[in-house]
Amino acid sequence: MAVYTEVPDDALDDFVTEYDIGSILSCKGIAEGVENSNFLLTTTQGRFILTLYEKRVDPSDLPYFLNLMEYLEERGIPCPTVLHGRDGKGLREVCGKPAAIISFLDGMSPRKIDTSHCKMVGEALAKMHLASLQFPMNRENSLALTAWRPLLYSCGQYIDQVQPGLKKFLEREIEYLHEHWPTCLPAGTCHADLFPDNVFFLRKKLSGLIDFYFACNDFLAYDLAICLNAWCFNQKGSIDLSRAHSLLTGYCSVRQLTVTELKAFPTLARGGAVRFLLTRLFDWINNPTDALVRPKNPAEYYHILSFHQKISEITEYGLE
Amino acid sequence: MAVYTEVPDDALDDFVTEYDIGSILSCKGIAEGVENSNFLLTTTQGRFILTLYEKRVDPSDLPYFLNLMEYLEERGIPCPTVLHGRDGKGLREVCGKPAAIISFLDGMSPRKIDTSHCKMVGEALAKMHLASLQFPMNRENSLALTAWRPLLYSCGQYIDQVQPGLKKFLEREIEYLHEHWPTCLPAGTCHADLFPDNVFFLRKKLSGLIDFYFACNDFLAYDLAICLNAWCFNQKGSIDLSRAHSLLTGYCSVRQLTVTELKAFPTLARGGAVRFLLTRLFDWINNPTDALVRPKNPAEYYHILSFHQKISEITEYGLE
Repeated sequence: MAVYTEVPDDALDDFVTEYDIGSILSCKGIAEGVENSNFLLTTTQGRFILTLYEKRVDPSDLPYFLNLMEYLEERGIPCPTVLHGRDGKGLREVCGKPAAIISFLDGMSPRKIDTSHCKMVGEALAKMHLASLQFPMNRENSLALTAWRPLLYSCGQYIDQVQPGLKKFLEREIEYLHEHWPTCLPAGTCHADLFPDNVFFLRKKLSGLIDFYFACNDFLAYDLAICLNAWCFNQKGSIDLSRAHSLLTGYCSVRQLTVTELKAFPTLARGGAVRFLLTRLFDWINNPTDALVRPKNPAEYYHILSFHQKISEITEYGLE
Repeated sequence: MAVYTEVPDDALDDFVTEYDIGSILSCKGIAEGVENSNFLLTTTQGRFILTLYEKRVDPSDLPYFLNLMEYLEERGIPCPTVLHGRDGKGLREVCGKPAAIISFLDGMSPRKIDTSHCKMVGEALAKMHLASLQFPMNRENSLALTAWRPLLYSCGQYIDQVQPGLKKFLEREIEYLHEHWPTCLPAGTCHADLFPDNVFFLRKKLSGLIDFYFACNDFLAYDLAICLNAWCFNQKGSIDLSRAHSLLTGYCSVRQLTVTELKAFPTLARGGAVRFLLTRLFDWINNPTDALVRPKNPAEYYHILSFHQKISEITEYGLE
């Protein structure tokens, strides 16, 4: 979330009159996240999020994302849902961009992550995986294994300016992952980006999962590996074993991992680290000067990846 | 307004417990403005703004700003006021920075400015000038005439990289202003930064004046000249005479300009253009990469200044 597009007052008025949500009291751009423009919209009837979908989101994917959120919310997963206008439509256009009004979820992303956050995130991810087993729509993971080599090459020689030798290091790692990536694991609907920014807590309980705009079909344990990288390492890239233990046991308390998943986990964690290292490198190198966001430092994920390269058993992540 | 500092959850909790405002439901960084870090804080009792004062604001000036807002609000000027904690204090610290909770004002800054906005802004500015005549505190304008030469030189040779010849052009202009700046005009408390971003409208009425962090003692007509530059030129720097007419007549309908003010107005307008051209140049050249804000293009103010240089009478701004 961020602000790339400013919405003129008259366009906003026209947009809101399509809905039964009262009249506008205020509308403030939110300085969060990276993908879309987001506004906190307050009307006489409550608070809402207005999202304008920017270049990085393929408009043809939007029905998948919005339907998934609705599907999950109906099954008890606390996630935002799209509001439907008087004409029944959830998706329309503002300033030439696809736009939607989304329900507002109370709560805050944690800044200081502790083991209780990790336990709740593990549980929530597993619940989301189970709740979406029958979700009828599909979306291929556009940032899966086969995308990593092209992504690496699109960064070109700049990668070694970020860190000497990094390009060769990543070429070798991607080579390794192509050889060792599992082929037959339980798969389903993944959030694929469940970072602390995308999880809200209120009064010490998990109150929301947001930002489903990377959701896709992939191995469920890969989604958990992404969470491990996002929640259980400190900023210098060294693991916090009690957090990792809490995340993994939290997940397993709702959905037990199979033996093949446990065995593949270190490889999945390496893959998850490569995926975020590559997109962070890409954003670092191609930092658009007109966005109100700061690219995330890729170095963190280099350290996380280096850690996973030394791991051979899931027990080394604190799972008994 | 923007976000320079992230507030950890525990620091936020500790801060809010000093106030009688209920418990926190959400807290979102706002992507607006340039000076401070601002958060829209929702509690069980309502909406508030949490402001962290960043480097550019001198902490010793804060009592002036906060008292002024309170003073104006008590006299019917719609502006935010600081909340006092249980200990009576309005100003405290978060993350090592001065911080305050400010009342939330409904309304939105206009994106498409029309003559009715300008008329209401003119009226509100004059009302603010009259309401603050007896305000007992004073603050020197740190960005007045005498500050412009040092500001120009602090930008160094980079200025000519923004636009060839600009340094010499500005030296000559500042020279001219030193020779022609009026010495004896009605003075008082000025907002000194009343741009569209700092004015809210709701249901076609002006609902708030915000961001008093440049407020100071100066010539009242200079404050109006700053508004003229901010509200009555299009982005290419050419004047919109109907908007200028509305702003000036709106102001004069509440507080009549004196003959000396009318005569000095074109010079004040040049000065106002120089002041914002210089700070925009400074920000453009010294763009901090860690701020979630985009510096404003200085070129706009170069064109506004060039326009004023050709003016000799206030009637040329649309005032009959």
